Amino acid sequence: MARARLRDLGLRTGQLPPGPLNAITDVAGVRVGHATVVHDAPAVARTGVTAIWPAGGDIWTNAVTAGFHSFNGNGEMTGTIWLEEQGLLATPVCITNTHSVGVVRDAVIAYAVRERVPRPWLLPVVAETYDGWLSEADRFPVMTAHAFAALDGATGGAVAEGCVGGGTGMICHEFKGGIGTASRVAATGAGTWTVGALVQANYGSRDLLRVDGVPVGREIGRDVVPSHRDGPAGGGSIIVVLATDAPLVPIQCQRLARRATVGLAWVGGIGANGSGDIFLAFSTGNRVPLDAPVSQVRMIGPDQMTTLFEAAAEATEEAIVNALTAAETTTGRSGRTVHALPLDRLQDVMRRYRRIE
Amino acid sequence: MARARLRDLGLRTGQLPPGPLNAITDVAGVRVGHATVVHDAPAVARTGVTAIWPAGGDIWTNAVTAGFHSFNGNGEMTGTIWLEEQGLLATPVCITNTHSVGVVRDAVIAYAVRERVPRPWLLPVVAETYDGWLSEADRFPVMTAHAFAALDGATGGAVAEGCVGGGTGMICHEFKGGIGTASRVAATGAGTWTVGALVQANYGSRDLLRVDGVPVGREIGRDVVPSHRDGPAGGGSIIVVLATDAPLVPIQCQRLARRATVGLAWVGGIGANGSGDIFLAFSTGNRVPLDAPVSQVRMIGPDQMTTLFEAAAEATEEAIVNALTAAETTTGRSGRTVHALPLDRLQDVMRRYRRIE
Amino acid sequence: MARARLRDLGLRTGQLPPGPLNAITDVAGVRVGHATVVHDAPAVARTGVTAIWPAGGDIWTNAVTAGFHSFNGNGEMTGTIWLEEQGLLATPVCITNTHSVGVVRDAVIAYAVRERVPRPWLLPVVAETYDGWLSEADRFPVMTAHAFAALDGATGGAVAEGCVGGGTGMICHEFKGGIGTASRVAATGAGTWTVGALVQANYGSRDLLRVDGVPVGREIGRDVVPSHRDGPAGGGSIIVVLATDAPLVPIQCQRLARRATVGLAWVGGIGANGSGDIFLAFSTGNRVPLDAPVSQVRMIGPDQMTTLFEAAAEATEEAIVNALTAAETTTGRSGRTVHALPLDRLQDVMRRYRRIE
Amino acid sequence: MARARLRDLGLRTGQLPPGPLNAITDVAGVRVGHATVVHDAPAVARTGVTAIWPAGGDIWTNAVTAGFHSFNGNGEMTGTIWLEEQGLLATPVCITNTHSVGVVRDAVIAYAVRERVPRPWLLPVVAETYDGWLSEADRFPVMTAHAFAALDGATGGAVAEGCVGGGTGMICHEFKGGIGTASRVAATGAGTWTVGALVQANYGSRDLLRVDGVPVGREIGRDVVPSHRDGPAGGGSIIVVLATDAPLVPIQCQRLARRATVGLAWVGGIGANGSGDIFLAFSTGNRVPLDAPVSQVRMIGPDQMTTLFEAAAEATEEAIVNALTAAETTTGRSGRTVHALPLDRLQDVMRRYRRIE
Repeated sequence: MARARLRDLGLRTGQLPPGPLNAITDVAGVRVGHATVVHDAPAVARTGVTAIWPAGGDIWTNAVTAGFHSFNGNGEMTGTIWLEEQGLLATPVCITNTHSVGVVRDAVIAYAVRERVPRPWLLPVVAETYDGWLSEADRFPVMTAHAFAALDGATGGAVAEGCVGGGTGMICHEFKGGIGTASRVAATGAGTWTVGALVQANYGSRDLLRVDGVPVGREIGRDVVPSHRDGPAGGGSIIVVLATDAPLVPIQCQRLARRATVGLAWVGGIGANGSGDIFLAFSTGNRVPLDAPVSQVRMIGPDQMTTLFEAAAEATEEAIVNALTAAETTTGRSGRTVHALPLDRLQDVMRRYRRIE
Repeated sequence: MARARLRDLGLRTGQLPPGPLNAITDVAGVRVGHATVVHDAPAVARTGVTAIWPAGGDIWTNAVTAGFHSFNGNGEMTGTIWLEEQGLLATPVCITNTHSVGVVRDAVIAYAVRERVPRPWLLPVVAETYDGWLSEADRFPVMTAHAFAALDGATGGAVAEGCVGGGTGMICHEFKGGIGTASRVAATGAGTWTVGALVQANYGSRDLLRVDGVPVGREIGRDVVPSHRDGPAGGGSIIVVLATDAPLVPIQCQRLARRATVGLAWVGGIGANGSGDIFLAFSTGNRVPLDAPVSQVRMIGPDQMTTLFEAAAEATEEAIVNALTAAETTTGRSGRTVHALPLDRLQDVMRRYRRIE
Repeated sequence: MARARLRDLGLRTGQLPPGPLNAITDVAGVRVGHATVVHDAPAVARTGVTAIWPAGGDIWTNAVTAGFHSFNGNGEMTGTIWLEEQGLLATPVCITNTHSVGVVRDAVIAYAVRERVPRPWLLPVVAETYDGWLSEADRFPVMTAHAFAALDGATGGAVAEGCVGGGTGMICHEFKGGIGTASRVAATGAGTWTVGALVQANYGSRDLLRVDGVPVGREIGRDVVPSHRDGPAGGGSIIVVLATDAPLVPIQCQRLARRATVGLAWVGGIGANGSGDIFLAFSTGNRVPLDAPVSQVRMIGPDQMTTLFEAAAEATEEAIVNALTAAETTTGRSGRTVHALPLDRLQDVMRRYRRIE
Repeated sequence: MARARLRDLGLRTGQLPPGPLNAITDVAGVRVGHATVVHDAPAVARTGVTAIWPAGGDIWTNAVTAGFHSFNGNGEMTGTIWLEEQGLLATPVCITNTHSVGVVRDAVIAYAVRERVPRPWLLPVVAETYDGWLSEADRFPVMTAHAFAALDGATGGAVAEGCVGGGTGMICHEFKGGIGTASRVAATGAGTWTVGALVQANYGSRDLLRVDGVPVGREIGRDVVPSHRDGPAGGGSIIVVLATDAPLVPIQCQRLARRATVGLAWVGGIGANGSGDIFLAFSTGNRVPLDAPVSQVRMIGPDQMTTLFEAAAEATEEAIVNALTAAETTTGRSGRTVHALPLDRLQDVMRRYRRIE
């Protein structure tokens, strides 16, 4: 489904170096799986589920530290009340469409029951953005089996981007959106760590889209590439998942999550009223067995966080742009079409603004 | 299912007068419905769904103001990220068991689709407490139809308490718990308003149970009435829903929600680690059409809030005790039994401690 | 200034055992100092400063973990934005009257300058409750030197209670209030630790006062002991500082702080609108050098927190009651008098309600 | 002290039109005053106080709605606990240097005492950024009289920018920083309103500085204009005050405050660890008499907020740039010099990047 990544086009954003895959899977142990649901009958579906396993080993009983931030809360991420209380993530994370949060959320519990996870109850983390413009969301096409498939199919290595998994039916800055990922290597005074981002990007107005500061959206206006929207633009949502191997305590994960705001702003997100801009960050640098009387954890020095913050902002920024460059023009419900960001025009604009020599 | 309410026993808590029904439905427009799911095959189910319609008229497009508070977030209430952002409640509220949050959450959307609600997406508020000790929660006995039944069956008037709806399989202070409700009439300098509470009570240790300050739990120890627990006590959860017709803006609803903590503490809740103590408050005193350019709302003077706070604390306290006095001894999964709070012994203890003349 | 502590009267609250001193100083390293400012000219002053050093060693560069909770935020505690962000406390904590927060806050910086603390800037934690009914607060009687005196005079060991330091002019449940302290020893599955509380109690209505669940305030009504208030009661504030040697990460300190709400509710606090009920909790079980690249910290297992929560609630409850039993009848500004809680009547009431055999 | 505003240079940022003054004072009733404290003996002072009166009429008893957001809380803003609770601002707002928050905070109370404000206590809002590199902050040069002067001297109309008031000693993106302001006119479906921003800008690294997306900081590197820093860059802080006449309830003010993050990110702020990036937003569109039993307020429709969000982001962005273009090269403590952003070079860079035709 993917056309290209930003760096395939001779372009880049940010100053810090990416990891080997330039993906959230550069953080060791993170695995990503997609279940893509595309069919035209009995309902038109352009939807799916994306699953992220935060770490190797048994996440169900051996948590990672985590925190979240809601920049604009017109959306859902289940499990956040527990995250806010405990600062621990002990389930996989799933992202799907708005009307399927429930089925996917219960599916994660059913999956744990199938796996005989020794915990009586669970509070899964499932987030969403809305795909009802392209997909008949009201027909509830996502099933438990799709969630299982995404969970079972998750792997390390390169991550499929664009119109896959939960991102299948998404729209971003009035172009086709979807899943994107990127990473950064942060050399701090306390060690060198990786920060990876995975986004499900479904937000934003054309006018505000920028790549490396260049007003790409205004340059590729609606007269050049039609927008899908008849009415006022600006709605939608974005989910950002940040992973790092830097050793963070929960409050520091919250801080990291908040920096997705910066990367989002750099691309042109302003947290429009209708947008659910919700960010999760977790650290594999600390593992916390849920039944240990006391766990030894490491807490990075506060001043070392700054480079991680920059890494989180940059990874978020590039992950969004990767979603745009990867996603393909898609036709769905009622014959509606959402056009992809044209890559040649993107390069033209960037050249005119001195971003390609 | 109900045996008695506290005041039927010649007992009372608190200083403020209750409303005519001493129930959340004393707030005009509030309707409550229960779907109780009890069967022994194919799975043992002692579970259900309780639905609350916050106000008359079209809640889907004509919101009430609302806010929430998580006193101890080892639980789930969906829709809270949106509540925190907008301060508006524009769906019914459902309470069920932990493993059914998803199916009930999506069911609320499906219900809106059925009703042709003119909103493309929804972020329903669905909360839970865990009933897996009495009910085979891992077999997922709650269905979409149960949620529909609770929603469709909701009425004003007296509210069934005890082992009904979402409260069917609950345990509270090591006695049988469930649904309870109460209300208070608050005469403030700005007008006289009602505060109603409905709880799904599933928390607490026997030792800490107090009624009107009397250490009832210690007096009716585990040697007198056996506890269901073999291991350490203290887990469980409580969901509190507060309704008022006092005209509150969203931030004031958050304040009111926080006062459920006081009522909970008075009965003996301390927010044990395993407990999801999550509180929702809404005000029917302000209706906000979601598509109005500007709405006129009323904001009660800050100093008038104090009496409302006392009312919220008292209503929560009595609602919990009503859940205990209403719920009946229940046998469920694997022949496990949870004993009801013995009403005669309760009266005896209260008499000894000078609470009955 | 102190008359008695609760346990001197043959009374007790709570189930857990107190530490040797039944004071916040049972947590090793905690030191408390008071500067009491009482004079009648040039202004009538019944005020002061209470200082708490959270731990031994160099707190300025070697922080403890910390968190806070505002149950009702009609008050001030400076430094909380930093606490929320970093979860670290690296200054002493001071409590004074409302109109002196600024002078005391800057005094802590001046103290650090005097001590040549190697940090360019500081964000001190200074909290307040209002003493303007007894003291001419508008004349600003608290000086930098008073803050220095409280800081310099701090010691471990028994803590003066009642009308001392920041508590000098305080009023609680319409009796004379002030400083109180208590502690609990919490035996958890992860080890045995101490939780200590120190309160500056200046809140509450007579009607709601309870000791161990007994409605002491209603029994000792305003006809028995006159209230200071002509107008409506219920205002005021309470600051609670909780210390523990249990090893908590910042998010766990926030959780602990929230439990002061329970202890406050047990005595009769409901967070009246005019009340600034703000709680700080810190853990000496983790020391974090501010300039360490990475610190090793310990994180207690979530399930072990429950006993700490109960300890925090009980220590807060008894600290408030100790403030009431210690504080003496005080006459201040314009000849106004606030009466102390009469100890003999307290014992009488408790006996009638079966709390003394 | 001011050299130029961005638009004087033929440059602009953002899409929405500014108000007549392009200043926070475009919101009717807002007044700004500065007390600039510059002397070389007995201590070297490059410091001051900036005061903002939020609205005409009697702010002390007739509040405006308000909310705040801490993007990175390594800083102080007093009064925020009350803001979070009540959502009302009923004092002027002052900004000063870190070590003077206390004296200015108490000065606001003393000012109210002088004015015979009929409120027994106050919780003033005073924020800070650190100027100790240029000014001998440890000598505490700011006095009560300076706060009074800023409050007394406040006026509507054009606002002095750059090295004035609280901004006198500030440093931004390694250039001379200080006070800046801007405004935007937001035409929404509910009416046309103004959003104004005033910043005290003291944050950021050179490398990250962008103007309208152009990497100005990297283009004007440290070899071109020396940085003041010997060590690692990235610290500092920024206070943003947003005013609007759009009718917002408190929770909506919180939302608006959060959008300052976007404007800050556009210029290159990432919330570095040492930075106190704290944002206040208030609405003059609702006045709330503190003693009114019930107030009528207006609540803008949620979907109308998006344009206000864009206005807040843009006004913040341009206010920061105005601080940079206005501030002059300054020499202070120990002969240290901070260089101003060179305006001709700024224009050159912007021309090369196609921002000037």
